[in-house]
Amino acid sequence: MLPIAVDAMGGDQAPGEIVAGARRAADELDVPVLLVGRPDAIASAGPGALEILPCTEVIAMDDDPGPGVRRKKDSSLVRAAEAVRDGRASAMVSAGNTGATMASALLRMGRIKGVSRPAIATPIPVPGGTPTVLLDAGANAECQAPWLVQFAQMGGAFARERYGIAEPRVGLLSIGEEDTKGTALVKETNALLRTAPGVKFVGNVEGRDLMTDDVDVVVTDGFTGNVALKTLEGGMRFIQAKLLEVFTATEERRRAFDVLWPAVVPLVSELDPDSHGGAMLLGVDGVCIISHGSSSAGAIVNAVRVAKEMVEHDLVAHLHAAVNP
Amino acid sequence: MLPIAVDAMGGDQAPGEIVAGARRAADELDVPVLLVGRPDAIASAGPGALEILPCTEVIAMDDDPGPGVRRKKDSSLVRAAEAVRDGRASAMVSAGNTGATMASALLRMGRIKGVSRPAIATPIPVPGGTPTVLLDAGANAECQAPWLVQFAQMGGAFARERYGIAEPRVGLLSIGEEDTKGTALVKETNALLRTAPGVKFVGNVEGRDLMTDDVDVVVTDGFTGNVALKTLEGGMRFIQAKLLEVFTATEERRRAFDVLWPAVVPLVSELDPDSHGGAMLLGVDGVCIISHGSSSAGAIVNAVRVAKEMVEHDLVAHLHAAVNP
Repeated sequence: MLPIAVDAMGGDQAPGEIVAGARRAADELDVPVLLVGRPDAIASAGPGALEILPCTEVIAMDDDPGPGVRRKKDSSLVRAAEAVRDGRASAMVSAGNTGATMASALLRMGRIKGVSRPAIATPIPVPGGTPTVLLDAGANAECQAPWLVQFAQMGGAFARERYGIAEPRVGLLSIGEEDTKGTALVKETNALLRTAPGVKFVGNVEGRDLMTDDVDVVVTDGFTGNVALKTLEGGMRFIQAKLLEVFTATEERRRAFDVLWPAVVPLVSELDPDSHGGAMLLGVDGVCIISHGSSSAGAIVNAVRVAKEMVEHDLVAHLHAAVNP
Repeated sequence: MLPIAVDAMGGDQAPGEIVAGARRAADELDVPVLLVGRPDAIASAGPGALEILPCTEVIAMDDDPGPGVRRKKDSSLVRAAEAVRDGRASAMVSAGNTGATMASALLRMGRIKGVSRPAIATPIPVPGGTPTVLLDAGANAECQAPWLVQFAQMGGAFARERYGIAEPRVGLLSIGEEDTKGTALVKETNALLRTAPGVKFVGNVEGRDLMTDDVDVVVTDGFTGNVALKTLEGGMRFIQAKLLEVFTATEERRRAFDVLWPAVVPLVSELDPDSHGGAMLLGVDGVCIISHGSSSAGAIVNAVRVAKEMVEHDLVAHLHAAVNP
């Protein structure tokens, strides 16, 4: 297998956690990893025997994505995407600037033939069940109905390959289950999805269905998807912090919480986006994983694991087949 | 004070819980309550000494709102709105069909002068702090920028009267804090809010800010707002059920959880939408409270309490002043 290119410079904890995660991934997953970044920064983080693709520039977390990618041609993100394009790497992983990751992948790898717009597919954790794949989680703030149909097709193919769901149930995010509810975009998309080839469309779903086992893939525009995702993340973070606060407020409660802690740990871990390997950019001609900006070494290990699996499953070929039925 | 009109027929648990709640509200809050509904149904629920406004029809939870209101002129919802219009009641409360409640209020009470579109303002619980007022939570699936500016003005006035916040911080829901992020609607609204009279605009906020103390009012279109609200409700319900499941899985855990239970109860109560008196329809010429369809008697008590407070504060006059600066 060709190596997985990991952007060593991307993320709030780069390069330290990223390089550490890349090393662990190479060790634990038996997969070659190519570190892309400034050699001095990578050296300081202890890359071990990992191969390095050197570059001189870095697109910062707050750089404007378009200009960043156009101007910083020797940046780690652009070089990582080129490595996939040129057959030097099988996939790329970055915890850096999300917009710049998308732009690098799109401009260097190009789109899969027939895809109108790539979309970000994010797994919403559903502890005890399979995550719900939400897309678009932020690549396209404004969408057209035919794009959403392709998101349904690509999301379905992804759920099949990633989670082994034979016939993923696809829902359209709206504000009521009835076909007549929602915006003009939702109504038009609903009608198109009723006859879309290869899509097991279960109709409109609501925000409350995201964290359930009632649907496998939820399709929406990138604005709504991003708001829903961040709303859920914020809510989960709030409730976890609040419970920790009240459960540790007295010595008696702390002792009781100690008993429950082993039951809480796996739940917290399942709810942690880092456990799920990050989001996938679906529709570009290569495997591209967008990890959380806050990614730890463990998150990078999971991202490399998912990247490896998706390469082995030939996800890109499945996405191509899904949008060209 | 004129009585609060309570739609005895609206809600999944009507008329039993609704009538019980109305009785409790009258007793506990020292406020007259007018029960609106079919006399036989109300009688069977035990209305005590409460005054009754009889009608013959009911708009069902799944009735199409527009036709429902137009055709069922002698329905409890339409009669409740007329009671406010005609000066027979000071406010209306319904846990019934949300769309029909909006339509009844809008068609019978009319809009406050200058208001383009009424919006649903829903308090998002932030345990330990003041709820965040989210609007529009579903009245208008598609919006124009000037409407959102009015939502900001009305939401601010509501947060002042309802929560006593002198200068409510108003955020615009988007997918990044930068002014350049989001849809065309968001960018246009952001620019208008920068100079909107009477609005303390703090810029774009994200979904993760909803359950925080960083912002008091969050403005968005009714599609995004409804999705965010239901996403959060679903997430909270999921996590509560999951924790209950793992905390009661063994005898040892159950004993530990018994110790923590007194700490959990107030948190669960604060997170419960029923504790917050329901959503307000802002912009119609009267106080109109839209309670959860699942409202219990306790939820109705809270709704009547909020209705009473908002009448006493003369909310409608404050909303009028806010949109006509």
